[in-house]
Amino acid sequence: MPHYDKRDFPLSEIREHLEPGPIVLVSSALEGRQNIMVMGWHMMLGFVPARLACYIWSENHSFEMIRRSRECVINVPTVDLAEKVVAIGNSSGRHKDKFAEFGLTPEKAAKVSAPLIKECYASFECRLDDDHMVEDSNLFFWEVVKAHVDRSVQARTMHYRGQGTFMIAGEELDMRNRFKPEML
Amino acid sequence: MPHYDKRDFPLSEIREHLEPGPIVLVSSALEGRQNIMVMGWHMMLGFVPARLACYIWSENHSFEMIRRSRECVINVPTVDLAEKVVAIGNSSGRHKDKFAEFGLTPEKAAKVSAPLIKECYASFECRLDDDHMVEDSNLFFWEVVKAHVDRSVQARTMHYRGQGTFMIAGEELDMRNRFKPEML
Repeated sequence: MPHYDKRDFPLSEIREHLEPGPIVLVSSALEGRQNIMVMGWHMMLGFVPARLACYIWSENHSFEMIRRSRECVINVPTVDLAEKVVAIGNSSGRHKDKFAEFGLTPEKAAKVSAPLIKECYASFECRLDDDHMVEDSNLFFWEVVKAHVDRSVQARTMHYRGQGTFMIAGEELDMRNRFKPEML
Repeated sequence: MPHYDKRDFPLSEIREHLEPGPIVLVSSALEGRQNIMVMGWHMMLGFVPARLACYIWSENHSFEMIRRSRECVINVPTVDLAEKVVAIGNSSGRHKDKFAEFGLTPEKAAKVSAPLIKECYASFECRLDDDHMVEDSNLFFWEVVKAHVDRSVQARTMHYRGQGTFMIAGEELDMRNRFKPEML
């Protein structure tokens, strides 16, 4: 498993890691327990403040932990963690600690009670910003309050296509010289 | 430029093309005019009915066309269209027809007035399902009412990272045999 050295990362630049659409691992904590779930339905909503939305199925054990704690950490795994990601997505945290079961390491966050996942190259601490669609639509609006990223890696993120298949992030295409400066 | 042969595609399976997080081209029509914009902030919300959310900056010329017509088509381009995608994202449709300017071909949709873009391998016709966050938050909730996909291609989609750079969809990872049947 790779070792990542995550450092503080500018909140205004988190799109770099979330906008391409990777599968993420959402960690939560409540009343002395912690949990991890896999999530694919999320989107950016703003740069400053850094905001995003995500959909969490209410049948997930994490749903109640996240709804009640009003916090979470969104961690971005790479393909090195593929086996663990799939195993986490196919199990429930109702009766076990997924950190222990899947050999992942919780790390203390700076601003929320939910832990970072050490084995992910990027982690974003989130506080619930707007809960008006949680109850009826399973939709959470977050403000990202702290970002940790290992900038030394070109991360091979996983992008879910359904039916048990993923796309792995491929080559980079640099089109900077075709952009107006104000559009960068 | 590639030629795609799009056919009817099951609405319940559109996640395959949207959940990985590609940049999309949104086409719209209003009062005899049509327009195209580039969009990276979108997410799946449900399978049946097929629902998704997207954020459209209110400064975009398309914003008013989409808000007032309450319809759009979400088209998925591949890297073959990279030059056009960037050019569209760096221009405004206020005073010109982007189909003509960028050599793209509008095709009649089945259920909405906005046109499909012929040069995109997948197109999803959308009707506004919930407008309560449009005014204050630029957030649109859509029901996809018709899907058109060329299933013969493994699409090399573009995923925006900011700063003028994209990730191009890479290799496939098939983990089906690690999933519980009910999770597929």
